[in-house]
Amino acid sequence: MTDAPETAPETPSDEAPADAPGAGRGRRARGGADARRAARRGGGPVQQQRFITRAIPAYRTLNEEGLALVEGNADTILEEIGIEFRGDAEALQIWADAGADVQGERVRFPRGMCRQIIQKTAPREFTQHARNPERSVQIGGDNTVFAPVYGPPFVRDLDKGRRYAMLEDFQNFVKLAYMAPSIHHSGGTVCEPTDVPVNKRHLDMVYSHLRYSDKPLMGSVTAPERAQDTVDLMKIAMGEDFVANNTVLVSLINANSPMTFDDTMLGALKVYVRHGQGVIVTPFIMQGAMAPVSVAGTLAQALAEAMAGLAFAQLVQPGAPVVMGLFSSALSMQSGAPTFGSPEPNLVLIAAAELARRLGVPFRSGGSLCGSKLPDAQAAYESAQTLFPTVVAGVNFVLHSAGWLEGGLVSSYEKFVMDADQLGMMQVLTRGYDLSEDAQALDAIREVGPGKHFLGCAHTQANFQTAFYRSTIADNNSFEQWEVEGGLDAAQRANKLWKRMLADYEAPAIDPGVDEALQDFIRRKKDSMPDAFS
Amino acid sequence: MTDAPETAPETPSDEAPADAPGAGRGRRARGGADARRAARRGGGPVQQQRFITRAIPAYRTLNEEGLALVEGNADTILEEIGIEFRGDAEALQIWADAGADVQGERVRFPRGMCRQIIQKTAPREFTQHARNPERSVQIGGDNTVFAPVYGPPFVRDLDKGRRYAMLEDFQNFVKLAYMAPSIHHSGGTVCEPTDVPVNKRHLDMVYSHLRYSDKPLMGSVTAPERAQDTVDLMKIAMGEDFVANNTVLVSLINANSPMTFDDTMLGALKVYVRHGQGVIVTPFIMQGAMAPVSVAGTLAQALAEAMAGLAFAQLVQPGAPVVMGLFSSALSMQSGAPTFGSPEPNLVLIAAAELARRLGVPFRSGGSLCGSKLPDAQAAYESAQTLFPTVVAGVNFVLHSAGWLEGGLVSSYEKFVMDADQLGMMQVLTRGYDLSEDAQALDAIREVGPGKHFLGCAHTQANFQTAFYRSTIADNNSFEQWEVEGGLDAAQRANKLWKRMLADYEAPAIDPGVDEALQDFIRRKKDSMPDAFS
Repeated sequence: MTDAPETAPETPSDEAPADAPGAGRGRRARGGADARRAARRGGGPVQQQRFITRAIPAYRTLNEEGLALVEGNADTILEEIGIEFRGDAEALQIWADAGADVQGERVRFPRGMCRQIIQKTAPREFTQHARNPERSVQIGGDNTVFAPVYGPPFVRDLDKGRRYAMLEDFQNFVKLAYMAPSIHHSGGTVCEPTDVPVNKRHLDMVYSHLRYSDKPLMGSVTAPERAQDTVDLMKIAMGEDFVANNTVLVSLINANSPMTFDDTMLGALKVYVRHGQGVIVTPFIMQGAMAPVSVAGTLAQALAEAMAGLAFAQLVQPGAPVVMGLFSSALSMQSGAPTFGSPEPNLVLIAAAELARRLGVPFRSGGSLCGSKLPDAQAAYESAQTLFPTVVAGVNFVLHSAGWLEGGLVSSYEKFVMDADQLGMMQVLTRGYDLSEDAQALDAIREVGPGKHFLGCAHTQANFQTAFYRSTIADNNSFEQWEVEGGLDAAQRANKLWKRMLADYEAPAIDPGVDEALQDFIRRKKDSMPDAFS
Repeated sequence: MTDAPETAPETPSDEAPADAPGAGRGRRARGGADARRAARRGGGPVQQQRFITRAIPAYRTLNEEGLALVEGNADTILEEIGIEFRGDAEALQIWADAGADVQGERVRFPRGMCRQIIQKTAPREFTQHARNPERSVQIGGDNTVFAPVYGPPFVRDLDKGRRYAMLEDFQNFVKLAYMAPSIHHSGGTVCEPTDVPVNKRHLDMVYSHLRYSDKPLMGSVTAPERAQDTVDLMKIAMGEDFVANNTVLVSLINANSPMTFDDTMLGALKVYVRHGQGVIVTPFIMQGAMAPVSVAGTLAQALAEAMAGLAFAQLVQPGAPVVMGLFSSALSMQSGAPTFGSPEPNLVLIAAAELARRLGVPFRSGGSLCGSKLPDAQAAYESAQTLFPTVVAGVNFVLHSAGWLEGGLVSSYEKFVMDADQLGMMQVLTRGYDLSEDAQALDAIREVGPGKHFLGCAHTQANFQTAFYRSTIADNNSFEQWEVEGGLDAAQRANKLWKRMLADYEAPAIDPGVDEALQDFIRRKKDSMPDAFS
């Protein structure tokens, strides 16, 4: 059972996909630009979907024996080899005080210590509040939250090709994520705004998320003071008291796999958890480079790294909201590049989700990952082969769920909306089975009988508008009709869709006083230091 | 645990994908055309993969309550509405003799009757023998067999576009399936050879499977006498006694959903099961047209239809090898075309696999299905979104696992090899977890330690050649290298691959006397009747 409200599509015509933000094509123009925009979207504001609460079971692939073996090996790694906490004397002191064996920057842990620390205080799930309370998300349990691509320095679209990302691109992706009903989260670095100085970029990024979306967001982690700026901006946006007592940020703390955390990530982690804000502690692993080539070895090492980071967060701030993360890919032994959508990382992903459930913390992994340079069949095969296991494994927070291209070097406009369409399908899949009397449809089967068809029967007439997920990208016309309409491929249709979405975009309301205060804070911060571009 | 032998790649260079039949590009030319061909393939004959024996659990999504509800509703449909057996007086007599309520062509069944008939005599799994015993497949249980696309009247490739399929195309697809290591079965109508008269086509099709492949095949079902011809050809190919005592054919018997079997299909079914040959009884359903728009309604109707067909097969020939089939798609309410890779058919597919297990018969469904007109991102998203659930649901026989395009109207050369690559990945995924001491890799983790990399460590060196599935299609080079190599998309690379495979193709050996006898049989059959083209 799910308690997620089903969004009733308000679709003015058969041709308008129910889930398409830009659908309808002006068929119900009612005069005035606003009304035309609304009509193009299908008669009202974007019908946002609530985060997923899975009504189907998680898929489990590794048996008890295997899970226990991996957990034992993780403990062996923590005990014998240990984890390095680099450049952070406070972290080493915290570990020494907690009873770990600290030698230089190497920390070794008695068996079971990290697990005990985590299980004592870490919440099994938590709420991340958005500035629009309807967009708040629940992270953990049977819930899944989709967030967009994170980190690419480049963008690509069919018109202008591949190029460095600019702030305008960043804002465009924030807008597209806002317009996509099944993207529940605004994410973080949806692309790197390379036209903004490195030391000021975070200010424009956080502001863009707050101004152009009302979905929850991720904070800067590139320096402790930038993490602090992020928290300060959230206090302006959502109120000092509210931020003091609620989680309004979830930020990405990557381990430097193998078995290392650096001072930048540790510094950002400490800022966030001390403010009660969430962190996703993520071993970033290409099997064969940052971990062994084998699945079982990778799982044990990743679990060890994650547990050390999560336990550290709990020591700094008991009860802080934390997420166990895992970025899992395999190394191409030919090119040295990461590969995606392949079976070995999927075996890692599905088992790791179960390990996180056994540990008792939310899990982040997967996404719509691919190595392709183009939004072509390779991109789609690899993305779908990552997304489906991500969802059925029960991943709670899915970064890179839309837009990821070229191993994460590129945020793709076309792929963003193609992936968003797939997310909409996952939303329906996870809703599971309607076993109501109406859905059993015995009366319809009686009415139609052998050899007839169901097109015109009462049950079909009553249900067809909402019966099936309607893709925003797929062409299901006849071959002849498809040819008449130009014989476009999926990427070409996606190109039209993202442009229509941006054209239809309207910013969510924001209190003018809050907006001014945010801008004022940013102005003062920017004025306080010279530009730095590295 | 799987008992499937791991195929050791014999890869002459880092650049040659281990699983690519056409890989290697002549790097080890040893003189002579045979040696060159062998070298192009990586130094030997194609490294065929055995059918899959899943070492990971089946994914179950519908709970006991839901499954029992569907089973009860299927019984209600069989009892109250019944199934029509059209144009086949013998079938009606068989049902009357068995105690069913026969009125006209409508047959109604006491609750539980069909299930009891099936469970009394139908085998839970069976072997389909190929003329090469190493290629025989086990259908049912934890096994999965991949067979190519079935039925398209058109073919498409990047060079010549979309056109009617010819016998040469048919033979090409048989050759490609023979060359694809993870396609375990030669299939049936891989495309319609429209240049051969309709009434003689089956002879050339069966011959092509027997001559150009040594993998198991499917028989003709378009008329009882063509089914008999198929059996007779198999007797020539594999020996009369052998065929009398073993299953050498598995053929596709579609229900005319809703709730109807026609005389053509019933006639072919009777021929096959009376010879101890296998049939796949398949409700062919577009939700909204041949069944209700709802998942629960579709499941109940499909189960009712399949049980009626399977029970009929058992009445005709107790113990005959049977497979419960289900072709599940959703109807586009805009175009009337089937849609694929969407969540509703996937919910049907995964639950139906469990219903078949409860019934105790092998299950056929899924594949690499899509509605796209091109081998583009739509095709790949939809195919992957069908194939992954197909495999993890535990489908035993996967028709359409490669080459399917445009809702089954087109066999695509490029998509065939792209899909075959995905099948190779499924082969690795289903092998599950290696928990050996070597795979645990604790020594490698000890050797490398924090902050270093695993590229050069002993464990990586010992394992990297076989550690990861190597895609035959994906480009994982750097962006710059990819550009230098022409900036090709996946379909363009696939175009090169299938041509290389056909160029490298060598027919499996066949006894010249057998070949002559097959040709003689076909010549006499063809001479015995005038051509018919409809």
